[in-house]
Amino acid sequence: METKQRGSAHEFPPEWKTGVYEAIFSRRDIRAQFQPDPIPADVLARILAAAHHAPSVGFMQPWDFILIRDSQVRARVKESFKRANEEAAEQFDESKRGTYRGFKLEGIMESALNLCVTCDRSRFGPVVIGRTSQPVMDLYSSVCAVQNLWLAARAEGVGVGWVSIISAADLKKILGLPPEVVPVAYLCLGYVTEFPPQPELETAGWLPRLQSAEVIHLDTWGAKLTPNGWAELESALVRVTEKS
Amino acid sequence: METKQRGSAHEFPPEWKTGVYEAIFSRRDIRAQFQPDPIPADVLARILAAAHHAPSVGFMQPWDFILIRDSQVRARVKESFKRANEEAAEQFDESKRGTYRGFKLEGIMESALNLCVTCDRSRFGPVVIGRTSQPVMDLYSSVCAVQNLWLAARAEGVGVGWVSIISAADLKKILGLPPEVVPVAYLCLGYVTEFPPQPELETAGWLPRLQSAEVIHLDTWGAKLTPNGWAELESALVRVTEKS
Repeated sequence: METKQRGSAHEFPPEWKTGVYEAIFSRRDIRAQFQPDPIPADVLARILAAAHHAPSVGFMQPWDFILIRDSQVRARVKESFKRANEEAAEQFDESKRGTYRGFKLEGIMESALNLCVTCDRSRFGPVVIGRTSQPVMDLYSSVCAVQNLWLAARAEGVGVGWVSIISAADLKKILGLPPEVVPVAYLCLGYVTEFPPQPELETAGWLPRLQSAEVIHLDTWGAKLTPNGWAELESALVRVTEKS
Repeated sequence: METKQRGSAHEFPPEWKTGVYEAIFSRRDIRAQFQPDPIPADVLARILAAAHHAPSVGFMQPWDFILIRDSQVRARVKESFKRANEEAAEQFDESKRGTYRGFKLEGIMESALNLCVTCDRSRFGPVVIGRTSQPVMDLYSSVCAVQNLWLAARAEGVGVGWVSIISAADLKKILGLPPEVVPVAYLCLGYVTEFPPQPELETAGWLPRLQSAEVIHLDTWGAKLTPNGWAELESALVRVTEKS
């Protein structure tokens, strides 16, 4: 492991760091690019282990992973998506509704595997370290598992799409979840023809990428970096963003 | 980039993959191991860019990042933690309360930097793609940003601790957040003496690591892998878990 004048003995060597940043910057939400090839058991096991090693509040590990191969189960999920998507379309102004309907927003039937990440809100009892002030923390732990899974999948060349246009009540029923278990993420996984260079909604001009400096504040809300003595960080952000 | 018989042209080369999995498996929640050295601007900029490139529902990018250097702001946050922690201790059975009070659960004052990740629930207006059925999706996007930040920090040799024993209302007041912006994660960042080999609550015997097979189901809740024709995946999970 390399050592640097500034930095830390725990810093990763350059190739490892490149891998971490490549996974982060080239990860995409995949909907239209799925290929049918199955994901080998070894690859899937590594991706699931990555998810299971997410941080969790009080080491609660509130997640479960339901792997959905069965096309009949998927067909029911797809029906639920269609209903939710039609309700969603109605919420957009007429001027945007046509564009919305033109987006492909899920790959439920054509991806190699569907996977639902859940949160068991009762795991290890009612009092969990770190969940006393903010009960929502268990849900957030399950989301951390999703993001680990997403990045590990990217490293394996496997695409992931998160289907959020769906009713949680429908999912609970279709997957037979117990009352204390809630669905957090319904994911589609599979090999892909490509990882698009940008998020599709950015490419389509639906919304712009925010500049880093717009979303960074110093000490309290609204105080920006440069006038408050941290111009060096602002310059560094511009350099990093230009590269990525 | 290597190609494999099974797999994908988009799979990372071995060293990059190692980096991704090392970040995931050696990431820790840091509370007691902080060193005072400042984080250089370039390193911090890369970590923040990683967070800003998280997935977000409808490309909403609902996050903001408040960097807290000021020790007076931190002292107020620490006071809020102390109150919440005392309330938390009372919730544990007497038999566990002493152990709970013995855990160090934050590094607010001694870490190089504090950082609050928020969620602006009104960003880009009331109707956002993918947030129509599940309004909580914007909060989940901010959590994805936290997990990207955590893994990028690990690659840089920077430790992160998530302080969840704190009142969200106090944080809103101390940091001056507008009504539509909620705090999602209050983090401590800094170089560390070590990344402990295991989560501290696992080492302390507070809770056990769950076996992967315990949290994986096939097609619907409760259906396990081996009796349902996917013994190959179960074996692969055992192999992966033994290594990590």
